[in-house]
Amino acid sequence: MNAPTDFAHLVPEINQRDVPQALIDALKARFGANCSTAMAVREQHGRDESSFAAPPPSAVVFAESTQDVSDAIKLAGDYEVPVIAFGVGSSLEGHLLAVQGGISIDVSRMNKVLSINAEDLTVTVQPGVTRKQVNEAVKSTGLFFPIDPGADASIGGMSATRASGTNAVRYGTMRENVLALEVVTASGEIIRTGTRARKSSAGYDLTRLFVGSEGTLGVITEVTIKLYPLPEAISAAICSFPSIEAAVRTTIQVIQLGVPIARVELIDDNTVRMVNAHSKLGLREEPMLLMEFHGSPASVKEQAETVQEIATEFGGNAFEWASTPEERTRLWAARHNAYFAAIQSRPGCRAISTDTCVPISRLADCLLDSVKEADESGIPYFLVGHVGDGNFHFGYLLNPDDPKEREVAEKLNHQLVARALSLEGTCTGEHGVGLHKMGFLVAETGAGAVDVMRTIKRALDPKNIMNPGKIFSI
Amino acid sequence: MNAPTDFAHLVPEINQRDVPQALIDALKARFGANCSTAMAVREQHGRDESSFAAPPPSAVVFAESTQDVSDAIKLAGDYEVPVIAFGVGSSLEGHLLAVQGGISIDVSRMNKVLSINAEDLTVTVQPGVTRKQVNEAVKSTGLFFPIDPGADASIGGMSATRASGTNAVRYGTMRENVLALEVVTASGEIIRTGTRARKSSAGYDLTRLFVGSEGTLGVITEVTIKLYPLPEAISAAICSFPSIEAAVRTTIQVIQLGVPIARVELIDDNTVRMVNAHSKLGLREEPMLLMEFHGSPASVKEQAETVQEIATEFGGNAFEWASTPEERTRLWAARHNAYFAAIQSRPGCRAISTDTCVPISRLADCLLDSVKEADESGIPYFLVGHVGDGNFHFGYLLNPDDPKEREVAEKLNHQLVARALSLEGTCTGEHGVGLHKMGFLVAETGAGAVDVMRTIKRALDPKNIMNPGKIFSI
Repeated sequence: MNAPTDFAHLVPEINQRDVPQALIDALKARFGANCSTAMAVREQHGRDESSFAAPPPSAVVFAESTQDVSDAIKLAGDYEVPVIAFGVGSSLEGHLLAVQGGISIDVSRMNKVLSINAEDLTVTVQPGVTRKQVNEAVKSTGLFFPIDPGADASIGGMSATRASGTNAVRYGTMRENVLALEVVTASGEIIRTGTRARKSSAGYDLTRLFVGSEGTLGVITEVTIKLYPLPEAISAAICSFPSIEAAVRTTIQVIQLGVPIARVELIDDNTVRMVNAHSKLGLREEPMLLMEFHGSPASVKEQAETVQEIATEFGGNAFEWASTPEERTRLWAARHNAYFAAIQSRPGCRAISTDTCVPISRLADCLLDSVKEADESGIPYFLVGHVGDGNFHFGYLLNPDDPKEREVAEKLNHQLVARALSLEGTCTGEHGVGLHKMGFLVAETGAGAVDVMRTIKRALDPKNIMNPGKIFSI
Repeated sequence: MNAPTDFAHLVPEINQRDVPQALIDALKARFGANCSTAMAVREQHGRDESSFAAPPPSAVVFAESTQDVSDAIKLAGDYEVPVIAFGVGSSLEGHLLAVQGGISIDVSRMNKVLSINAEDLTVTVQPGVTRKQVNEAVKSTGLFFPIDPGADASIGGMSATRASGTNAVRYGTMRENVLALEVVTASGEIIRTGTRARKSSAGYDLTRLFVGSEGTLGVITEVTIKLYPLPEAISAAICSFPSIEAAVRTTIQVIQLGVPIARVELIDDNTVRMVNAHSKLGLREEPMLLMEFHGSPASVKEQAETVQEIATEFGGNAFEWASTPEERTRLWAARHNAYFAAIQSRPGCRAISTDTCVPISRLADCLLDSVKEADESGIPYFLVGHVGDGNFHFGYLLNPDDPKEREVAEKLNHQLVARALSLEGTCTGEHGVGLHKMGFLVAETGAGAVDVMRTIKRALDPKNIMNPGKIFSI
């Protein structure tokens, strides 16, 4: 944990609001034991996977229903006190921190799968349901929910941050996969956005306004998401390349030919070395693509052949294939273990993750220059990428006791984001803005667009109680 | 053209605002010959494909640049006069009508393809570029833009109404295919939403807020859309079924098995009869599915075999296949000619189109009951459906001189929408709300959600000058 001074350095605005005892009393009266002010509970809800420290919320309400959420928001609104929704706490960008004080509404007990509509390929869940829980619940239908951000995140949190992950290249992100929401607004009103119809032109797209709004416009209390048929066949492959550029060029051509590849992940040679050391894998210490193909047996075979042909043209070699679940897991071990291998390569370190995403034609340029800068900085790092989308993550491995290292890492990230923006990309492909990227957002979209966001926020949340101080200053 | 009284009956609110001569003078001074007040020009811009009549705009500005749009909006704003963007005029829901008076901004001269990025599968165009023009421009890249709403609509208009069409089942709608926009807001400010990155978690999804906002929040001046690789092979098929239900059940199973079908359209037996009479086709006068498969030759073959097997189980017969462009066109003639065949089946008639969309598991119920009602009403109609999405259109063929027929058709549409909503569907799959569906929108989303839309509208357009009186009353 970093000291609050460190946090103050990174987050320009700390405007702790008063949380009156009268509100705490009212919450306790309404929620009884489901409202906690125990320090351990508050601290657990006042941090996430980011490296920020902030004063924890003054109380945590464990909501068990939409009405609970509505009542908690109304009470907080009466006292103009901030409200921060909490799912499983796997945010990477400080979304959960009570930077302006306030209360946390923990929705993890709202964890029911409400209805599975297999014929329509939809499922409606409460926000505390995790993605693994969804897949467990729908297993017998022959369908699955593909969005996989790594962590077993809650569907509410994934919606709020517009999450994606390794197979977005084929199945899209939460943007494409949330059909409808129930949301409690800042006034405590319960609204529905969207229906179960797969498309609609009925008014403003409120579903997609709330998806990615990071809790700043309302608390999501129900989510209808799309499901997909479990592929008849799945095949996985790894392939080594003489350079990152060769791996990226292969990816571009695969995408451009319309091969419906389900996953295409890059790991750089440096990270392969870490994985080898950690898991004794003996992989070629070269940049590597890890791929997955979904479809009928014939289609999977055809996709794999096409990709192998392209990869070979770009110098790809050491191809390995797998089709049983066990073999696939073995082959993908390098990807699954990359984070832990990296963390363990530098005992005691803390990883800070970048999240830029650029048009794939710019990916090689963006990556190569940033790798050079990272190498020159002397900061150890790992590098993994959802390259089919142009999204990649450097993980800088910092000594938490060395403020200089953080400074260097921040500078690297700034350079990387500036480069991504100059290449028509975004500062965040899937983690969200949170606390860390507020400055980048202005650089990316321009002050005018951020003003439009701020105007919407002010109109829908006039007391500024919904997760204030995230995405933009207000 | 119906009389204004008829229009008044259908649109609750006509609040014609004053358009001062001073504004017209200022527009003429700024735009010269590009500002017209000729009645023929005004009338052309004051109607669309809907059956409404409204007073035309007081002037039409032919914008040639984003700056032109900005200047026109600023001048209109100075006088609090409404502004209505105009592309090619193919709206079906009265979007273009000056129900509160105002000026039209015609963007059809903003028709440049600004940049094609073949490697990234994106193209950026001005809003007056039509979808056919996009496809012409990108032809040599081996890519195409699949969204096909029938009319050769402008990309700006398609974005503003969240349009889709026959191959949304595979490629999505404008919601999924617009990556970024340039928009002139109500204050005349020029903002950008989104980047060319394929995914992003950077703040509120302004792109999707403006997509489908029907000109009520801003005027779209640039659009970046996704392209797709032209399929290596395309195969088309038609197949007859003993009942609408059998055709729909076939479709559900195709979707549920994950067959990546590119198009699957339903035509009912009644409409097949009209097409036979019109085009001398000799098709079996039974409900029919028209399908298209895209992919590699092997994948297309596999898809087709799977679908034929499913269709046969449900009693499908009279299969016909085609793979050359000419044969495909011949096979799809029934679909392409349905509208004209229907119109000509009742000389002098005017078609009023419905646009409900339901989860596909509910499609058979929704269709069968509505067909029964339509048959009982005695009003002639055609019926076509993008059944893979659950979206379908009745076209009621009315005698424009018989107000009773319109009344009956309105009643049929009300019953149909009520049914669709009760089946978790939407009142509009792809045409938009416009003037006609404002009441339905409230029934569909609830007053709370419409209030959220209205709050956003008021905040972003405090003078209520952007296409007022559409989507919701304000």
